[in-house]
Amino acid sequence: MRKLIAVCGSDSDDPNLSDFALRAAEKVGYLLARKDAVLVCGGGGGVMEAACRGAKKAGGLTIGILPRDKEYANPYVDIGLTSYLGRARNYILVRSCEVVIGIAGRWGTLNEIALSLNVGKPTVVIRGTGGWADILSNGEVQNLLRNFSTRPFIANSAEEAVEIAFKVIRQR
Amino acid sequence: MRKLIAVCGSDSDDPNLSDFALRAAEKVGYLLARKDAVLVCGGGGGVMEAACRGAKKAGGLTIGILPRDKEYANPYVDIGLTSYLGRARNYILVRSCEVVIGIAGRWGTLNEIALSLNVGKPTVVIRGTGGWADILSNGEVQNLLRNFSTRPFIANSAEEAVEIAFKVIRQR
Amino acid sequence: MRKLIAVCGSDSDDPNLSDFALRAAEKVGYLLARKDAVLVCGGGGGVMEAACRGAKKAGGLTIGILPRDKEYANPYVDIGLTSYLGRARNYILVRSCEVVIGIAGRWGTLNEIALSLNVGKPTVVIRGTGGWADILSNGEVQNLLRNFSTRPFIANSAEEAVEIAFKVIRQR
Amino acid sequence: MRKLIAVCGSDSDDPNLSDFALRAAEKVGYLLARKDAVLVCGGGGGVMEAACRGAKKAGGLTIGILPRDKEYANPYVDIGLTSYLGRARNYILVRSCEVVIGIAGRWGTLNEIALSLNVGKPTVVIRGTGGWADILSNGEVQNLLRNFSTRPFIANSAEEAVEIAFKVIRQR
Repeated sequence: MRKLIAVCGSDSDDPNLSDFALRAAEKVGYLLARKDAVLVCGGGGGVMEAACRGAKKAGGLTIGILPRDKEYANPYVDIGLTSYLGRARNYILVRSCEVVIGIAGRWGTLNEIALSLNVGKPTVVIRGTGGWADILSNGEVQNLLRNFSTRPFIANSAEEAVEIAFKVIRQR
Repeated sequence: MRKLIAVCGSDSDDPNLSDFALRAAEKVGYLLARKDAVLVCGGGGGVMEAACRGAKKAGGLTIGILPRDKEYANPYVDIGLTSYLGRARNYILVRSCEVVIGIAGRWGTLNEIALSLNVGKPTVVIRGTGGWADILSNGEVQNLLRNFSTRPFIANSAEEAVEIAFKVIRQR
Repeated sequence: MRKLIAVCGSDSDDPNLSDFALRAAEKVGYLLARKDAVLVCGGGGGVMEAACRGAKKAGGLTIGILPRDKEYANPYVDIGLTSYLGRARNYILVRSCEVVIGIAGRWGTLNEIALSLNVGKPTVVIRGTGGWADILSNGEVQNLLRNFSTRPFIANSAEEAVEIAFKVIRQR
Repeated sequence: MRKLIAVCGSDSDDPNLSDFALRAAEKVGYLLARKDAVLVCGGGGGVMEAACRGAKKAGGLTIGILPRDKEYANPYVDIGLTSYLGRARNYILVRSCEVVIGIAGRWGTLNEIALSLNVGKPTVVIRGTGGWADILSNGEVQNLLRNFSTRPFIANSAEEAVEIAFKVIRQR
């Protein structure tokens, strides 16, 4: 079976979503596809669209687990699963992948990151992309999380995030 | 986005599963792949495995929406979504495809066929494959269903099932 | 914990839903509440509403597992779980109860009955109420199901359905 | 229909769960029941059990949306919905209530709190109970969240949490 790696992050309606975050997402998608991983995401805009675009530039395969019908899908989704489960589709997304990579992100993204860490799945956030990826990378928050048995990996770039993702897959 | 077509049917533990049904499933998988559709199924044995094997023989792409982890997947699943939702994965399977094709099948398959008809999705069963596909093709049952606003299409072969599937997709 | 028994059946938009079926549903709800069971249903109209009304006449407690928001709930639902899962709520409904009682019903009800039998849950249909309850009670269909390892119990009245439900609970 | 209020928080296997958090949970359960709200929770130990015990002391009704079967339920659950959906049950829990109250909590609780804020549901965390309730109450984190359009309410006691919960319900 193909390796599935999830990218979670802000939809295009996040007013704080930065170009830096979108470039990181596109680069992550590109690098995942280059390493023959299948990109799985929520199928929408913003970070999800950038990651899918990157994956398609590298000839990869993209899966969007859509909250409802095909209307929501960005143009770079190859396989759109029209779940009709609303945000409960986050659960399937997280459960179905080997690693979750979080970029920027508001409460929906945090919902996915928290589930991922809750089920013990390796989870990487990219520092500098804003939103919850940055909050979880913050030194004070890292300190508050010191007693938690699982914590996200912190990457400083798209490259490092993908490197961590493949390293944890190899070690499993 | 790629066209997704679902094949539902008995797992390998159905004592009444016939070679005829397995050959029909394999042929359906093969024909769907030849027509560039993506096969989506529950990812298990029996009808699901035969359909995936057929699709792979024609170089197609197969998705298994698994009830739990990868253990359940047959060897011909390319993309295994480890839903951890048990039989609730049936819902995602049915919702995500354009057409459902039912072959043989016990209560689990009927659960999928009934949902498919409930949401108004085109649904085809192959007569002669046993189980619920045959019960729904039975003349007396057809008569009892005459007042229902939606009913499955009845195909007499794998070829006819795939032909009906693509015909209804074109007409949408 | 309280005993939960599910009643599944046609919504009020089923053009073939009979007064006989509605009276049976109300009687089932009444009898379940008299025996201190909690009625769980999809929370809608038709059979669901009649069963809830019956339960409330006997001072019982009613739970509606709603497909979306509170708008769908009938006036006799005490506890409305606004699942926002669409028809995937059928899964939770069936999984959460001790016994499923099916009255009339189209494809949605069959989806629930099939899941119930698929997971080995005792399932009763009331003959004479129309729809799938009648199809499953039909002699020819019963004959076609003879090789199936699980089959629904056939009751001839609301009283008999409730009697069977409590008998199977006691025997577990 | 009855008002449902959710209490989310650490299970009994959280090594950092404090007596203060458990007392707050019990008090919240008690106060919710006194105000005639139905307590809905995940049905397990720790914060969930304490909240249910408090609700029962005040003669309230408690619902546990269980991840699997009845084994998981604490002794104070009246209605145990055996969802068999694993942690996807978090989704139903959050969707079904008017307000979410978070106490202590690790990643599973954060999964619920994040979903609640994602769907715009009023969400209260009790400062001083540890875990994510405390992290979200932290001044630095509050500052990092200043650009978010939704944020949790911060309560300093069980009493204040319940007061906020009923205030937001009245204002809707």
